[in-house]
Amino acid sequence: MKLGFIGLGNMGAPMARNLLKAEHELIVFDVIQSNVDALVQAGEGRASAANTPAAILQAGVQAVVTMLPAAQHVKSVYLGGNVKDVVLIDSSTIDPMSAREVAKAAAEKGALMLDAPVSGGTGGAEAGTLTFMVGGDEGLFNRTKPLFQSMGKNIVYCGGSGNGQVAKVANNMLLGISMIGTAEAMALGVSLGMDAKVLAGIINTSSGRCWSSDTYNPYPGVLENVPASRGYIGGFGSDLMLKDLGLATEAAKLSRQPVPLGSLAQQIYQTFSLQGNGGLDFSAIIKLFTKS
Amino acid sequence: MKLGFIGLGNMGAPMARNLLKAEHELIVFDVIQSNVDALVQAGEGRASAANTPAAILQAGVQAVVTMLPAAQHVKSVYLGGNVKDVVLIDSSTIDPMSAREVAKAAAEKGALMLDAPVSGGTGGAEAGTLTFMVGGDEGLFNRTKPLFQSMGKNIVYCGGSGNGQVAKVANNMLLGISMIGTAEAMALGVSLGMDAKVLAGIINTSSGRCWSSDTYNPYPGVLENVPASRGYIGGFGSDLMLKDLGLATEAAKLSRQPVPLGSLAQQIYQTFSLQGNGGLDFSAIIKLFTKS
Amino acid sequence: MKLGFIGLGNMGAPMARNLLKAEHELIVFDVIQSNVDALVQAGEGRASAANTPAAILQAGVQAVVTMLPAAQHVKSVYLGGNVKDVVLIDSSTIDPMSAREVAKAAAEKGALMLDAPVSGGTGGAEAGTLTFMVGGDEGLFNRTKPLFQSMGKNIVYCGGSGNGQVAKVANNMLLGISMIGTAEAMALGVSLGMDAKVLAGIINTSSGRCWSSDTYNPYPGVLENVPASRGYIGGFGSDLMLKDLGLATEAAKLSRQPVPLGSLAQQIYQTFSLQGNGGLDFSAIIKLFTKS
Amino acid sequence: MKLGFIGLGNMGAPMARNLLKAEHELIVFDVIQSNVDALVQAGEGRASAANTPAAILQAGVQAVVTMLPAAQHVKSVYLGGNVKDVVLIDSSTIDPMSAREVAKAAAEKGALMLDAPVSGGTGGAEAGTLTFMVGGDEGLFNRTKPLFQSMGKNIVYCGGSGNGQVAKVANNMLLGISMIGTAEAMALGVSLGMDAKVLAGIINTSSGRCWSSDTYNPYPGVLENVPASRGYIGGFGSDLMLKDLGLATEAAKLSRQPVPLGSLAQQIYQTFSLQGNGGLDFSAIIKLFTKS
Repeated sequence: MKLGFIGLGNMGAPMARNLLKAEHELIVFDVIQSNVDALVQAGEGRASAANTPAAILQAGVQAVVTMLPAAQHVKSVYLGGNVKDVVLIDSSTIDPMSAREVAKAAAEKGALMLDAPVSGGTGGAEAGTLTFMVGGDEGLFNRTKPLFQSMGKNIVYCGGSGNGQVAKVANNMLLGISMIGTAEAMALGVSLGMDAKVLAGIINTSSGRCWSSDTYNPYPGVLENVPASRGYIGGFGSDLMLKDLGLATEAAKLSRQPVPLGSLAQQIYQTFSLQGNGGLDFSAIIKLFTKS
Repeated sequence: MKLGFIGLGNMGAPMARNLLKAEHELIVFDVIQSNVDALVQAGEGRASAANTPAAILQAGVQAVVTMLPAAQHVKSVYLGGNVKDVVLIDSSTIDPMSAREVAKAAAEKGALMLDAPVSGGTGGAEAGTLTFMVGGDEGLFNRTKPLFQSMGKNIVYCGGSGNGQVAKVANNMLLGISMIGTAEAMALGVSLGMDAKVLAGIINTSSGRCWSSDTYNPYPGVLENVPASRGYIGGFGSDLMLKDLGLATEAAKLSRQPVPLGSLAQQIYQTFSLQGNGGLDFSAIIKLFTKS
Repeated sequence: MKLGFIGLGNMGAPMARNLLKAEHELIVFDVIQSNVDALVQAGEGRASAANTPAAILQAGVQAVVTMLPAAQHVKSVYLGGNVKDVVLIDSSTIDPMSAREVAKAAAEKGALMLDAPVSGGTGGAEAGTLTFMVGGDEGLFNRTKPLFQSMGKNIVYCGGSGNGQVAKVANNMLLGISMIGTAEAMALGVSLGMDAKVLAGIINTSSGRCWSSDTYNPYPGVLENVPASRGYIGGFGSDLMLKDLGLATEAAKLSRQPVPLGSLAQQIYQTFSLQGNGGLDFSAIIKLFTKS
Repeated sequence: MKLGFIGLGNMGAPMARNLLKAEHELIVFDVIQSNVDALVQAGEGRASAANTPAAILQAGVQAVVTMLPAAQHVKSVYLGGNVKDVVLIDSSTIDPMSAREVAKAAAEKGALMLDAPVSGGTGGAEAGTLTFMVGGDEGLFNRTKPLFQSMGKNIVYCGGSGNGQVAKVANNMLLGISMIGTAEAMALGVSLGMDAKVLAGIINTSSGRCWSSDTYNPYPGVLENVPASRGYIGGFGSDLMLKDLGLATEAAKLSRQPVPLGSLAQQIYQTFSLQGNGGLDFSAIIKLFTKS
């Protein structure tokens, strides 16, 4: 297939390379020229550059994948260009209301759109093992599934337009809460005299068990090969978690839904960020609860 | 063995019956006479009643198990009686500092003490499948392990005196946080248009996964055979979760440890209790986030 | 002066009537025709109706006052019309960033704009005793001060564009926090056996003193002539406080500023609203802390 | 009168000196000998030292004033000694339940007790301008009023036993909430471009007005002669506010009363203390919300 790809950052670039590996032809755009150059080179003749997002839409592509920082960029690309008869796949993480607004406007212009945010991080993007949470028309989802399978492993249909984003923000809000909760519980237990590994072992076979405790434990030394055991470098940045918690509380406000723990989690990450820690992995939040 | 058992409530009674099944001889006490009578009858000659906790301690028992509502009861039993040469096993859930205080005082009087709170609820108590989290001397733990195995399945050594209680309050604080977090995420997702089962399915295979979502989901109809699917009757009462969160925040205060989400979780359950819902299963907290 | 007035709701209508009393000529618009009719009639020949906001801007008015529900309405009026050489006074409560965005766009089209949100409620609007918090050019502020004085009593210059809105959201966030704090303190004291009036008297002469305790106490019977003493009818609605807390936390997010109490206050009012109490005065929040 | 005074710390010593100035005779005790020596010297013949608190109670004093760090010290003094026919005045800040427990036990031993915590800080203690919040028998209060007037200015009767402590913890909880709220509002406003003094001026004439904003503003430079304008040295320490918030949330737990903002305020001060700031004045909490 002839595809467009817009947004070649840490996530977008490896996703686009996986589409090339699946023998697709790509026309790409990014605001940073070196990102574009690297991708065109990686394409070995099957990737070319466009000067603007609009040029991609007019180049006869069957589908476009976008991986952009925020809702305004997605709106700018899709509402500004001629999207008629193009399948639009937005893998950015944005708020569900904006996703639905863009999808509706795109439909009025003759396009079909899926919101398809991912989880799995840059590691998953490179390995092609991302999870895609997809919202939109189910028939379209089924027809485009092979595209997703080139980039990911777990492709989940979430229901109508915007539901991919709903699943993403709901999951990540719970993740942020669980991570802080795990950090509080681990720091409390250790301060009261328990060994961190013993405590984690008990929690992981009890009702406090969660991904943040059994797979990504924030206490240093409990698990190998997690950010907590290498100075909180790499992983999923605290400021990215802060962004997702901001999307979740914004969606909750618009939906008139209380999310007290989600909201406090956002404030805790905001405090952590103000103290200069936004670039650390999000499990570093345990530093707020332990003496340095 | 000749054992004492003090506290024959919803948890204590089935635990004592499991000790009888394991061929032990019991001398028992409870403030409610009918609880005592039922247990003596169940003993078929191997259980007898004492008029006071002190009488049990003087009756030549090798060990005493207590299952009492709060720290003051535990203190009253063990600090008031002659505990010399008796093994004291306290399965009540109390704060770690009180557990250590009692153990220290008991040691000074010639007794050996283990704190051994449980998880698994009344179902686990009856089936003999409780988890015991045990703090105290490791040699003593190893020698008394068969006693625990008569009443439970998963017997975990947590370290020195009080550590059983530390593990219990740390785990249950995280449980309370995870449950409210799951409730917020499920209510938010559904209010934004997602199907509850689809959302739970995504969370349970993603980073938001936790016991509260995959084993005890609070949204009605997502899982069968959980309180959420039978009107929140039975299970682990909201007021019991409130009690455990109170112990956790108290321990955190004494340890000068911040637990912002644990503390807010306590306040949320307190609000729920004030509105008359303390008797419902603790997953009913989702009612605070959904229109009735 | 010949003035435009757009938005004749509970606040806008009495403000417009006070401009008429000050001998100004008005051209007015509202989406509800009966609001327009009532104002035109009240004008006794000095008020006329326009069919659209744009028509007002083209009718040769020297200044326009807007009193609208949300930022999108303000944007729609000012960014959609020909505002050249008109003084734009927006008394709506909107977020500071939107206020600055509109002012900048208006300036590019040749208009001068002030953001001038009010406090004082419908009572203050009718009595002409509103407080205006005004942001924008100081010279323009001084020239337009007489207009504000026709509608209010306390006219405060807050600095550059958007600062009127900043002052409003900062003050109202603190108000929401103080009101909940006062409600918690009063409910706690009374539950512990104190007389509500005695407690309020002590707080009001001590360091807990605040407007919510000494002027608008939420406990029934402490003060006369406040909503708490008439079933929480009238006053400043809980859902309006919820809206202002939403603006404050949104501004804080954009400014990367933690506001943990402000954010929890928002969630508490959201919970209260979900339980059907959004129409009650905002001091009714004490109902969350007292048994009904 | 012949009086006892136990606890000669930063608050107790100046209070005792004011009793000496009022021509009373004092027998004093403190665990630190130099505190005792200084007071005896200040007494110029009217102050003498006792070796134990019990010795004071047996020395024929008419009344004893205690100013001690925590409930266990108060219990130790009054429940351990012979208090028959002595008037007991406890000015320590302890939880209301403990105050009532001690008063009841003292009454059973023939003593009359008042709980009489103070506000006003070390400055007020030295100037003799403290506020006393007094709980207990009203006749006893009236008879002992002259004693309080030797040490303070504002002597408030709060009702039955324990109510002095109730008033203190309710007021100080609201104070802690208001201070953090003021800090959030000031930091937010300044980050959004407002001048701190202008913002404080607006708040202080609006509905956000509170003691923390108009008398003790946490933003540096807004007020002279407050800790914020001298590096947060002196004043009322953050760890003392943390202690009072701990008493308030403990009382709320026992009273089954939700205090969500009070509880979050406690956690915020706990976090601040963990970061090494417990010795700074409690208005320094604004440092959590501003970039250093």
